[in-house]
Amino acid sequence: MSLPTKYQLDESQMPRVWYNIQADLPVALPPVLHPGTLQPIGPADLAPLFPMDLILQEVSTEREIEIPEPVREVYRLWRPSPLYRAHRLEKALGTPAKIFYKYEGVSPAGSHKPNTAVPQAFFNAAAGVKRLTTETGAGQWGTSLSFAGQLYGLEVLVFQVRVSYDQKPYRRAVMETYGARCLPSPSTETAYGRSVLAERPDHPGSLGIAISEAVELAAQREDTKYALGSVLNHVLMHQTIVGLESIEQMQMANAWPDVIVGCTGGGSNFAGITFPFIGHGLRGGVKPRIVAVEPAACPSLTRGRYGYDFGDTGKMTPLVKMHTLGSTFTPPAFHAGGLRYHGMAPLVSHLKELGLIEATAYTQTECFAAGVAFARSEGIVPAPEANHAVKGAIEEALRCKREGRSETILFNLCGHGHFDMSAYQKYFAGELVDESYDEKELAMALAGLPSVSA
Amino acid sequence: MSLPTKYQLDESQMPRVWYNIQADLPVALPPVLHPGTLQPIGPADLAPLFPMDLILQEVSTEREIEIPEPVREVYRLWRPSPLYRAHRLEKALGTPAKIFYKYEGVSPAGSHKPNTAVPQAFFNAAAGVKRLTTETGAGQWGTSLSFAGQLYGLEVLVFQVRVSYDQKPYRRAVMETYGARCLPSPSTETAYGRSVLAERPDHPGSLGIAISEAVELAAQREDTKYALGSVLNHVLMHQTIVGLESIEQMQMANAWPDVIVGCTGGGSNFAGITFPFIGHGLRGGVKPRIVAVEPAACPSLTRGRYGYDFGDTGKMTPLVKMHTLGSTFTPPAFHAGGLRYHGMAPLVSHLKELGLIEATAYTQTECFAAGVAFARSEGIVPAPEANHAVKGAIEEALRCKREGRSETILFNLCGHGHFDMSAYQKYFAGELVDESYDEKELAMALAGLPSVSA
Repeated sequence: MSLPTKYQLDESQMPRVWYNIQADLPVALPPVLHPGTLQPIGPADLAPLFPMDLILQEVSTEREIEIPEPVREVYRLWRPSPLYRAHRLEKALGTPAKIFYKYEGVSPAGSHKPNTAVPQAFFNAAAGVKRLTTETGAGQWGTSLSFAGQLYGLEVLVFQVRVSYDQKPYRRAVMETYGARCLPSPSTETAYGRSVLAERPDHPGSLGIAISEAVELAAQREDTKYALGSVLNHVLMHQTIVGLESIEQMQMANAWPDVIVGCTGGGSNFAGITFPFIGHGLRGGVKPRIVAVEPAACPSLTRGRYGYDFGDTGKMTPLVKMHTLGSTFTPPAFHAGGLRYHGMAPLVSHLKELGLIEATAYTQTECFAAGVAFARSEGIVPAPEANHAVKGAIEEALRCKREGRSETILFNLCGHGHFDMSAYQKYFAGELVDESYDEKELAMALAGLPSVSA
Repeated sequence: MSLPTKYQLDESQMPRVWYNIQADLPVALPPVLHPGTLQPIGPADLAPLFPMDLILQEVSTEREIEIPEPVREVYRLWRPSPLYRAHRLEKALGTPAKIFYKYEGVSPAGSHKPNTAVPQAFFNAAAGVKRLTTETGAGQWGTSLSFAGQLYGLEVLVFQVRVSYDQKPYRRAVMETYGARCLPSPSTETAYGRSVLAERPDHPGSLGIAISEAVELAAQREDTKYALGSVLNHVLMHQTIVGLESIEQMQMANAWPDVIVGCTGGGSNFAGITFPFIGHGLRGGVKPRIVAVEPAACPSLTRGRYGYDFGDTGKMTPLVKMHTLGSTFTPPAFHAGGLRYHGMAPLVSHLKELGLIEATAYTQTECFAAGVAFARSEGIVPAPEANHAVKGAIEEALRCKREGRSETILFNLCGHGHFDMSAYQKYFAGELVDESYDEKELAMALAGLPSVSA
């Protein structure tokens, strides 16, 4: 037990580039389609929503994209983040496996989300943008963009799903601490929000609706752009700093993962830790098994269809090819709000279709049980989203125990649960239920997918 | 701005000893008195409450006490903690001062408290103790002891001040996540608790009452000891790892503080960062100014009396000489729960009497304003307690600006505010008021101090 438990890189060892997996894909990503014409779109079509630097990152096939120095300066507030060897968890499980985890909860927002919020705010500010709009569910992404916007003098307007806005006022308080404005969605500030409220004045909101509202406002004003916290290629690329650091830290530990586990909602933290390792394998290196863990109540990778769909409910976004439950699908209200999205990042979906990653789903109560076991051995209380990765890693470690194999497991602990203790409270009170989605609603949502020949 | 913003020590550079300021005091600490006889007590008198290793640390005058390797192993989960240069805050204030801060919010509990919870649990477990009792207000200390107890297989019973127990169920959820049992105080489990409830069934509780309950239970059972999160000499000594690391990190930065700022409730985080620097000065080194910042609503150092008093309301603890508002004094319900204590650590009080430290007091709204300014420049949202240190540091930086002096300021950011966003929410809603204590009640509490000739 006198082994180091923490592998910490010096600031000078922080990566200077992001890794773009599009450079190494054996088959290129299917094109993005225009929502009106259903024809492939070019960079100019995205210009109303994003600054050109980010659009070029979205479509780039360069392997390495330089991280601007002003972004690295902000990253240094919490990066490089630590990588841990989970000695105590291994002992508690009695497994011969070696378990490592990368911890992203050290950021000011307590999760991995600032890794992309900061460069998105930077490139928008550099392009002269004055205001960013975005959506948030539980609030992790809204918090992170508020933090990043503040650093570069950008006004940030967050549409928060109304049920979260009402039930989790503390997350709103964090956004306001960072100077952002936070509105419940559906709101009366957009035509789409008003149309939803006209049909149902007490609508609880959804991420899909909030995205439509944020996109509508951004498209209307020259000085306003839209920022998304997951799904898009450039967002996933910004997160690869997680995996790039992990590669250096695994080398410090004289180890290399046999299996890498991440939780998946939109796909960003999963992509962050896995893409650099997948790329290493695609370029001829060792190929670890890659396991995506999603919530059983919103199983886009394991139960969704791979096809073209909208990113939002209002059908304003371009169409992307992804694993989707249908943009009208509303997942039950489980506690890992960051994983409640109908679709999956096109890049993650593409890798799944290429057979480069596996996917599995667990219910929230079994994930909370895993999170509690983790907290009691390693000390950190994971976010409900991260509990899915913990569960996946524990299952791999128990498999190693059964098979008598001392494999090396790496997972991404993408955030702490200090904002989410009400969910743990319900778990201990026995009030957490594993509500399933409605099979009929899923069938209807899938039947309603846009018909695209591509 | 290409200077490093973060000074990070390697695990191998983590201190191997704690610093005991009693070795360097120009005048020895006044003795601790028995609550019954009012005579000085010896180590054996404390044996019902604490294991002998901790009692010997309490009275030791050795300069360095070795940190046991099993404690260092746990410390490595988050230590060495980072030291930051607050470039962005300096810029926002337009000050020529250099501001550095040590950040203790990276611990699993989100504050500095595990620095002493872990060794206390370790030494108790090593002595064969099976159960620890303690008190907690807002919950930071209870959380930390629950975390530490779990690691060493100790049962932990936390008496939480009832008003916090009812209002902050999320903190209780953290303690339960770590496997501890948490009871509202006053409770029916102790004779003292029952006596308080008999007089007033709806009593909201206080730290002094909760201490009495925890002490009563520990004194009754051979296998049960008591743990305190601040005030005592050994507790403050465990926190000196904060200052010892800071000394190394300031040297990395080629800087040395002209002034060090910490917030004070019981005194532990303040002692942690300042004692190693004070000791350095007492041994002939440079003497920085040392500024303790306390809440104006509970001003033990600036408005209390220096005299012998009990640590608890039930008058079960030994008497210590300290700055006190009287053990019957009940501070108003402001949000920095960790600073709501009638007394001050005897060592901190002694240093104040010796003229080695200064003290100042601020109201909670001005501290929250400082915390928001800090979050908007540096990104980290401070705990309400830490906001007092932020306020003190900002005032020093503004003084430097007025005087045109580029002094070096160091402060301890002892925890993050992610558990305390309800207080920020009230601050933004304009609902935070600066309730003062009752002058008559203070006068009565001071008049009721035990009469001791020493």
